[in-house]
Amino acid sequence: MSSQAASTTEPIKVALVGATGKMGQHAIDAIHAADDMELVAQLASQSPLADITEAGATHVLDLTVPDVSSDIAEFAVANGLHTVIGTSGWTENKREVLQRQLAEQPNVGVLIAPNFSIGSVLATRFAAQAAPYFDSVEIIEMHHPKKVDAPSGTAVRTAEMIAEARQQVGVGPSPDATEHDPDHARGAQIAGINVHAVRLAGLEAHQEVLMGTPGQQLVFRHDAFDRSSYMPGVLLGLRTVASRPGLSYGLDSYLDLD
Amino acid sequence: MSSQAASTTEPIKVALVGATGKMGQHAIDAIHAADDMELVAQLASQSPLADITEAGATHVLDLTVPDVSSDIAEFAVANGLHTVIGTSGWTENKREVLQRQLAEQPNVGVLIAPNFSIGSVLATRFAAQAAPYFDSVEIIEMHHPKKVDAPSGTAVRTAEMIAEARQQVGVGPSPDATEHDPDHARGAQIAGINVHAVRLAGLEAHQEVLMGTPGQQLVFRHDAFDRSSYMPGVLLGLRTVASRPGLSYGLDSYLDLD
Amino acid sequence: MSSQAASTTEPIKVALVGATGKMGQHAIDAIHAADDMELVAQLASQSPLADITEAGATHVLDLTVPDVSSDIAEFAVANGLHTVIGTSGWTENKREVLQRQLAEQPNVGVLIAPNFSIGSVLATRFAAQAAPYFDSVEIIEMHHPKKVDAPSGTAVRTAEMIAEARQQVGVGPSPDATEHDPDHARGAQIAGINVHAVRLAGLEAHQEVLMGTPGQQLVFRHDAFDRSSYMPGVLLGLRTVASRPGLSYGLDSYLDLD
Amino acid sequence: MSSQAASTTEPIKVALVGATGKMGQHAIDAIHAADDMELVAQLASQSPLADITEAGATHVLDLTVPDVSSDIAEFAVANGLHTVIGTSGWTENKREVLQRQLAEQPNVGVLIAPNFSIGSVLATRFAAQAAPYFDSVEIIEMHHPKKVDAPSGTAVRTAEMIAEARQQVGVGPSPDATEHDPDHARGAQIAGINVHAVRLAGLEAHQEVLMGTPGQQLVFRHDAFDRSSYMPGVLLGLRTVASRPGLSYGLDSYLDLD
Repeated sequence: MSSQAASTTEPIKVALVGATGKMGQHAIDAIHAADDMELVAQLASQSPLADITEAGATHVLDLTVPDVSSDIAEFAVANGLHTVIGTSGWTENKREVLQRQLAEQPNVGVLIAPNFSIGSVLATRFAAQAAPYFDSVEIIEMHHPKKVDAPSGTAVRTAEMIAEARQQVGVGPSPDATEHDPDHARGAQIAGINVHAVRLAGLEAHQEVLMGTPGQQLVFRHDAFDRSSYMPGVLLGLRTVASRPGLSYGLDSYLDLD
Repeated sequence: MSSQAASTTEPIKVALVGATGKMGQHAIDAIHAADDMELVAQLASQSPLADITEAGATHVLDLTVPDVSSDIAEFAVANGLHTVIGTSGWTENKREVLQRQLAEQPNVGVLIAPNFSIGSVLATRFAAQAAPYFDSVEIIEMHHPKKVDAPSGTAVRTAEMIAEARQQVGVGPSPDATEHDPDHARGAQIAGINVHAVRLAGLEAHQEVLMGTPGQQLVFRHDAFDRSSYMPGVLLGLRTVASRPGLSYGLDSYLDLD
Repeated sequence: MSSQAASTTEPIKVALVGATGKMGQHAIDAIHAADDMELVAQLASQSPLADITEAGATHVLDLTVPDVSSDIAEFAVANGLHTVIGTSGWTENKREVLQRQLAEQPNVGVLIAPNFSIGSVLATRFAAQAAPYFDSVEIIEMHHPKKVDAPSGTAVRTAEMIAEARQQVGVGPSPDATEHDPDHARGAQIAGINVHAVRLAGLEAHQEVLMGTPGQQLVFRHDAFDRSSYMPGVLLGLRTVASRPGLSYGLDSYLDLD
Repeated sequence: MSSQAASTTEPIKVALVGATGKMGQHAIDAIHAADDMELVAQLASQSPLADITEAGATHVLDLTVPDVSSDIAEFAVANGLHTVIGTSGWTENKREVLQRQLAEQPNVGVLIAPNFSIGSVLATRFAAQAAPYFDSVEIIEMHHPKKVDAPSGTAVRTAEMIAEARQQVGVGPSPDATEHDPDHARGAQIAGINVHAVRLAGLEAHQEVLMGTPGQQLVFRHDAFDRSSYMPGVLLGLRTVASRPGLSYGLDSYLDLD
C-alpha cells in the first residue's frame, strides 16, 4: 500500500546481509527504487557483522542461509536494530531463543517471513478461511522442473492451515470414493488434504487451491512469475517492523485483513 | 459448517414463500434434506400470508419478487417470525422502513441476501481485502447467453467493493497505457475497475477477479454450475437468523471470517 | 456443424438400445429435438432385438453395457443397419470380429466411440499434435468425488496418444529434477506422462493438458458440466455413419480437422 | 522437434539484422546455444547490408522494423540467401513484390512470421479448427499494462480465422441475449467474435479462446511469460526455410499438423 507518509520522515537505513544471492540482487534494486529507504551496507553471508553498525544502519534485512541467520539476528537485536528475516530454518526452538533476547529490547521489532510473496500469503490465508464452508478441498502446486522437492513447502503449509481450520469447526474429510488408483494419480495426502505437484518447463512458482460443494467451485490461484514478486513483501516488512516490537512470524501478521 | 448442535434441538419450522419458482423448488429439496428443519408451509407469491402463521412457522424464507417482498417481510416481522429474504430490489429506503419495524420487535432477526452463494460472497470479500496490495485489478464475469444485462450485478458489486477498499488506503487506479481501443475491447469501467462480460453457451454463472503487481498475479475464481449452489447459503441463513436480531444485509455478515 | 442438407431428405430412423439409462434418457430428448431424426424404437438392454427391425429402423444407437453390446452390433450389421456404439469394453479382439462381419456388408457403417464429447475428443487430438513442440507435458483430470477409478479413462488415453506422438519424432521425457517425493505428490506416470487426478464436490468431468517450454505455456482445458454434453457427438455419429461404410473407431474420425 | 539430423551437416550460417533490439538480444543467445548454427554477422537496422555477404552468411534473420525490412529481404533474395523475417507490416502488396523477385530465385526460401511463438500459433490454429463445433466462441487477451493497442494483433487474427472457419460451414453467430450494456462490458466485436482485453501488472502476453455448447466448454490458453518464448519458433524457421523455396507466410506453414 502507499508509503507517502513515510517519505516525509527520515529514510529507513538498511543493511542487507546476503547481498550476493539472487534474492539479494533483487533486494538491492528494490531498496534503491524506494524513496523512503537508503541502502547503507551490503554484506555477503560471511562478512564481519560490525560493518552493519559502522554503516549507521537502523534496519537489517537478512537474506542469507539457515546456518548464519541466527547469528545475524542475535547481533542485530543486541545492537537495537529492527530486523527482517527471509531465511528458512527458523524452528520453534530458535524462535524462542530470539524471543527471550527480544524481551530485553522492548523497542526492537523482528519479522521472520518464510514467504515474502504478499499474493501467496493472502491466498493461503483466504483459503484457510473459506475451507470450512466447502465439502472438498485440494491443492495443485506447479513449479519449474528444476525443483527437487515435491510437494512445495508452501503447499504443505497451505494444506496444514486448511486442515486446522476445518478441524476447528468439525468439518470432516473431503468425500472420495476412489477404490482403484494403482499409480498414485490422487497425489499426496498432507494433513488429510490431497496435494498435486506439477513440474513444467516455462513455469516458475504457481499454486491453485480448489474448493467445491454441490453446484459450485471456488479457486484461489497465485502465480509468481519471478523473484521480483517477493520485493513488495520485503519493503512492506522493512516499513512496518519498527512499529511492531517483539517477534512477528509470517508476513500475514503485517497485512491489514480484518 | 457443521450443524450437529442444532439437530438436537427443536427443528426450525420454515414457511417458504415463492415455492413455485426455480429457486423455490431447489429450496424445497434442500429443506427436506436438512435434519434440523421442517417445511411447514409452501406458498406461491400471491397466497394469503395467513397460511404462514396457521402452519405454525417460526421462520419465513422469501424467494418471491421485489413487488411482494416488502409485504411478506412486514407480515413476518409483525408476527415475530425470523425471516430470510433472497429477493432483489431492497433499496436503502425499503430497508430503513423494515429497520424501524424491527426496532419494535427486538428479538426478531431478518437477513436480506442479494446473493446466497457462499463461494461468491467469500470471493468478493477476499478480493476487496486483497485489492489494495496490487497495482492492477480487473474483473471477468462469464454467464449463459440468455442473460440480458451486462455486466452482472455481482460484478458491479465486486467492483464497487474493490474500489472502496483501494480508495480507503489511497491506492490509485490500475496502470493502463491504452491509447487506441476503437471497439471497446477494454470493457466497462465500473467504479474505475475494468469489467469484462463473457456470454457462452454451456456456462451458468462464473466470475474471475484478477490482481497483478510486478512478478505476480492473484486470481479468485468462482463457478456456480447450477442453482443448487445457493442452497448451503439459504440453510446457513435459516440456521443463523434467530441468533442475529435486527436487520442483517448480505450473507457475509453471517460468515465467520475474522 | 450444420445439418441443413440432411433435413430435406428422409429422416434417420433410430432404434435406441439402452433407453432406460441416464445416457439413454438424454439421447431420447436429443433425438426428439433433432429435425432430421425419428425415434422409432426404445429398447432396454434385455429387450428382444427383433423390436429394432419390426420398427423399421435404419440406424441403431447402442448405449448399453459391454456384456450385451457385441450381440446388438452383430444383429444390427446382419440386418444391414448403420450402428453407433457408445459402450466401453470394445477390445481389439471384439473389433476384429465385427470388422470381419462388416466385410460381408460393404454398405453398412459402424462407429464405436469410447467418448462422445466432441470437445474432449478435439482437446485430446490437439494435445497430441502439439505435444512434440514442448519440453514438458502433464495432465490434470478433475471429477466428482463418486468416481471409483483414478486416473480417468480419458486421461489414460490422452497420455498414451501424447506419448506416442512424442516418440514418433524422438522427443524425450519431460524434464524433472524431483529427488524427494515421499507422498507421491507427482501423481501417476502413464506412458511416461505425469497424470494428476482431482476429486471435488461440485465438479462433473474436466481435464487440463499443460505443455511448457522455456518462456511459454499452452493449456487445453475441457469441461463437461453434464451428460447433455455428449449429445452433439451422438447426433453427429448418427448423421455421418451411413456415409462411412466399415468400422470407424473414435469420434475424431468423423471430425473435419485437416 | 529434434534437430539431430541437421547437426551432422554444415552449420547454418546466420546473419542477424536488428541485433540491438530486445528480440535481437534473445536471438543472439538462442543461436549461440544451437549446435547446428553459427552466428556469422550481427547488424543494426542501419548497418550496410554488404556486411551480410562479406561474412559468408547462408541465412538472414531479420528482426528490424517495417521501414527497412523490405530492403533487407530484397538484398537477401538477390544474393540467394534464405531469409526468416519477424518484422510486422508486410502487407499483401509488399508480399507480392517479394514473390515476384523469388520467382527468379527458385531455390531460395523466405518465411514471414508475424508471430514466432509456436504455442500461440498452435492455439490459434486449433481454435479455428474447433470453432465450428461450438455454439459460442469468445476471446480474452491479457497483457502488461504498457500496451497501447487493444485488442492485441494476435487476438484480431485469431478472431478473423475463427470467423472464417465458422462461415465456411455455415455456423451462425454466437447466441447473445444482451439487451442492456451501457458501458461496453461485452467488449469488442472483431469479425463478429467478442474480444476482451485485460491489462494487468505482472502479466506479459496471454490469450484464452473459450468455446461453449450446451453442457460443455473447451478452452485454449497460451501464456508467453517472456521473449525467450519466441526463440524455438525462430530456430525452427531458420532450420526449415532452406527446404521450403518461395514465400511462406505464418509459422504454422512449417508445423507438422496433419
